[in-house]
Amino acid sequence: MRDAHGQEGVVVHGGRYDPRRTMTMHPVLIAGQWRPAQSSRSFSAENPAVGEPLPGEYPISDWADCDEALAAAATAATLMREQPPENRAVFLEAFAARIEARKGELVEMAHAETGLPKAPRLADVELPRTTGQLRQGALAAREGSWALPTIDTKLNIRSLLSPIGPVWVFGPNNFPFAFNSVAGGDFVAALSAGNPVIAKANSSHPGTTRLLAEEAFKAVGEAGLPAASVQLIYRTSHADGERLVADPRTGATGYTGSRHAGLKLKAAADAAGRPIYLELSAVNPVLMLPGALAERGAALVDEFVTSSLMGTGQFCTSPSLVLLVASEASEQFVASVKARFEAATPAPLLSSAVARSLTESVATLRAAGASLVTGGTPVAEPGYRFRNTLLRASGAEFLASPDRLQTEAFGNAALFVVARDSEELIAIVERLEGSLTGSLYTDTRGSDDALHNRVEPLLRPRVGRLLNDKMPTGVAVTAAMNHGGPYPSTGHPGFTAVGIPASLRRFAMLQCYDQVRPDRLPPVLRDAPPHDRVWRLVDGEWRRGPVSGA
Amino acid sequence: MRDAHGQEGVVVHGGRYDPRRTMTMHPVLIAGQWRPAQSSRSFSAENPAVGEPLPGEYPISDWADCDEALAAAATAATLMREQPPENRAVFLEAFAARIEARKGELVEMAHAETGLPKAPRLADVELPRTTGQLRQGALAAREGSWALPTIDTKLNIRSLLSPIGPVWVFGPNNFPFAFNSVAGGDFVAALSAGNPVIAKANSSHPGTTRLLAEEAFKAVGEAGLPAASVQLIYRTSHADGERLVADPRTGATGYTGSRHAGLKLKAAADAAGRPIYLELSAVNPVLMLPGALAERGAALVDEFVTSSLMGTGQFCTSPSLVLLVASEASEQFVASVKARFEAATPAPLLSSAVARSLTESVATLRAAGASLVTGGTPVAEPGYRFRNTLLRASGAEFLASPDRLQTEAFGNAALFVVARDSEELIAIVERLEGSLTGSLYTDTRGSDDALHNRVEPLLRPRVGRLLNDKMPTGVAVTAAMNHGGPYPSTGHPGFTAVGIPASLRRFAMLQCYDQVRPDRLPPVLRDAPPHDRVWRLVDGEWRRGPVSGA
Repeated sequence: MRDAHGQEGVVVHGGRYDPRRTMTMHPVLIAGQWRPAQSSRSFSAENPAVGEPLPGEYPISDWADCDEALAAAATAATLMREQPPENRAVFLEAFAARIEARKGELVEMAHAETGLPKAPRLADVELPRTTGQLRQGALAAREGSWALPTIDTKLNIRSLLSPIGPVWVFGPNNFPFAFNSVAGGDFVAALSAGNPVIAKANSSHPGTTRLLAEEAFKAVGEAGLPAASVQLIYRTSHADGERLVADPRTGATGYTGSRHAGLKLKAAADAAGRPIYLELSAVNPVLMLPGALAERGAALVDEFVTSSLMGTGQFCTSPSLVLLVASEASEQFVASVKARFEAATPAPLLSSAVARSLTESVATLRAAGASLVTGGTPVAEPGYRFRNTLLRASGAEFLASPDRLQTEAFGNAALFVVARDSEELIAIVERLEGSLTGSLYTDTRGSDDALHNRVEPLLRPRVGRLLNDKMPTGVAVTAAMNHGGPYPSTGHPGFTAVGIPASLRRFAMLQCYDQVRPDRLPPVLRDAPPHDRVWRLVDGEWRRGPVSGA
Repeated sequence: MRDAHGQEGVVVHGGRYDPRRTMTMHPVLIAGQWRPAQSSRSFSAENPAVGEPLPGEYPISDWADCDEALAAAATAATLMREQPPENRAVFLEAFAARIEARKGELVEMAHAETGLPKAPRLADVELPRTTGQLRQGALAAREGSWALPTIDTKLNIRSLLSPIGPVWVFGPNNFPFAFNSVAGGDFVAALSAGNPVIAKANSSHPGTTRLLAEEAFKAVGEAGLPAASVQLIYRTSHADGERLVADPRTGATGYTGSRHAGLKLKAAADAAGRPIYLELSAVNPVLMLPGALAERGAALVDEFVTSSLMGTGQFCTSPSLVLLVASEASEQFVASVKARFEAATPAPLLSSAVARSLTESVATLRAAGASLVTGGTPVAEPGYRFRNTLLRASGAEFLASPDRLQTEAFGNAALFVVARDSEELIAIVERLEGSLTGSLYTDTRGSDDALHNRVEPLLRPRVGRLLNDKMPTGVAVTAAMNHGGPYPSTGHPGFTAVGIPASLRRFAMLQCYDQVRPDRLPPVLRDAPPHDRVWRLVDGEWRRGPVSGA
């Protein structure tokens, strides 16, 4: 998931504070109050399907807002540590119910701000996924097993993962609900783990984020969480962004967006020793081995085109690099995809910034040696659209410019690399950079097995999720998911942004209790836990219920 | 644990390659060969108890050695991924047995290089701890539960933590066995998790490291591990150190040592997106609340002095900052500790560098407002010794210079801060930086409870391990241990350097298998696992044995 050129894709209103604009300027949510931002600039969103500004202005907060939010969050973090997990669970469930109650308005707003279809995408897929994540987070908070509570009864040493402190969430442009900074995956993970969240809205859908924050804040009150458990700022300067992730009051940051902006935040957070979890860019290589193409080429065309054009290719796991071995079947595959790309009407892109970035990326790929099979240019109005684009390069061309030919082209574009033979295919795989996913298509009769067995050990450590005979789009919210991968697809290969309970563990610190008196222990570490659903590693065995003798 | 001024505390032989020195120059272990280093400089160790050089010269490797080691390790990493965990387990057990068989020589060498007592410390405590860790690592590798294997049977998505690739281990000066780069905690964690290790010896005990590497390499052969699973370089330039942790072939780095050198390596690794785990410095605050001192002041003197002077204070968890509230009992405590410090004969420090650093740190503390109660100067020859040193400061002085008064004084020195009252004590705790441990002493009759309950929520998020009525030295190797803590005591608060299985998870990447054909899954993720000891999270439940229906 990513936000091509991030915060540049909106209309910015410069200059000093203008009292004539106060009627349309939306407030920020800081320290339990919806109140005017301390801000000298503002922006508004656009409808990308028609290329026109949307009503409402949103403030670009000065550091004073960030500072106040951090102070309030630090206090909230201390208060949250004292509350039982039940409060978080009640909040998450109440919030989910409120999202459902305001579904119509949310879908309209998200559609206007992103151009994504109201149905099935927004109303029937993404919104239910979002409320489902919130409810999974509630279950995880209540159960408590996510924290890996560990007890050594003989030495009376006990430990668990505990809240890390205030978490900044920077959401991406491409999932206005499911990865929204105030309702999506990172938000759920941070809050379920017991942390207050300060959301930094994505500038392309501030209105959707505002509606979600309104409901979240009401649910905060209903659940009795500290008022500053959820705060919202729409936007800051880049300099303030780097300052806030490095602030000593910040526990951690979750960021999903462009590699360029993400790595700047990473450098600032790293230098200050503040954890930051990034989901950056990925080309998600798909290897179609010769037997698979020979066996079921037409079906693979269908699978690929469906996955590649889904959401106009604006998924973090979009299959944007396909590796083939030269053959008649491969040429047929390329020709069929070309025809299908040309027959499909391009849907709008998320913003003018995505359209601009896609144009630039295609130019970069062509300059690096890729040739255009079809597409490659913007579509005339209305809104921001790009022709479905297919590029190709030979294996030799790829090996001459492996870095540039792995440039992300976020949107409805893909690059096919046709290797001369199996040896060249292997050389290409050895030059792949870290990606979120990697797909291996092989035939069902075993003719690809020998090549598979050479390629798999090279591909496996380069991707977070390995698929067989399946396209990478569609990230199930399951404990077994890994929506992560080696650098530069993320900042650390050990963590996942999707999947409960693992995603919660990013926003936690390990806390050990050595000879701490029984009544001072967190309830989940006492001999008799507060309930029998929590799994604890007791003297090397995963168990539920009290420790022996309790 | 730390290495004050790290690699500077030894005799460096400059200039170009000198053939007259070849007879005494020790080889490095690279790519399965003990062979001469590619090096233009060398160093030798010193006996710190007498301040005299020890025989033997050790090379300072050029980049060519690092490069060759990395290439060999990358190949070994691929081979190790294909081997069953049993090979690692056999290696770790064979290595432990070999250490025991060579115990006499190892203890003599470590004693000569570090000045630490042969018994009980080296022979009866540290060496058995080291072999115990190796055997715990073998058990963890065999069982496989450390990797948190997770299976969603309905969606057929499975994941586990997998080896991250070649791991560099930089060991500290203060545990020549238990944290040795080629036998200690990080070595065990990285290798048990399935990674080849490239050890960078600590320059203060190269001979001990050489003997350990000799045994490790023999055990590699016995276990059938790839020859480059264990490699050893004695030393590099600082620039090459920063280059190797950032090399794309490096999977991760484990570093224990000084904050200054560690943060330089961290910056280099972070910029390249390579994980690095650091254990840096800590003052390990000890809070003696008024009731505890009134109730059992004499016993607390004994506890503190024993812990503080143990190992001449050269422990990562040495209690070097004690917080008191002004009272008669506190003054009695200070006076008693002073008397005990003066009565105890200082043991040798680990190196001339430690002695120099301790002198500097005491000067820094005094310049920041602390006054000397006793000690504060080096002891005359033989070797490198420092008078047992006690400093004190008022709460107001601490609050005027909280950063400088948390300067680590690695060695036999401690700072007592006497707060005016409870409110000032709380203000002090709010200024504490991240530490490995924090100890809270309270009385048994409840008179400290109110103050405890105000202090604990402030102290808890600042330390990795919280103790009640116990000194922080003595780090048990148990699954429930946390030998980690908030920055700047480490680089990330979610990880521990001690404690199996958690310490293994630092050297791993999360790998997901989505619809991967059953015979291509790692054995531990198949419906029927290779053995019934491994715990797996199957559809939300921790279970042993095959999944239903398998």
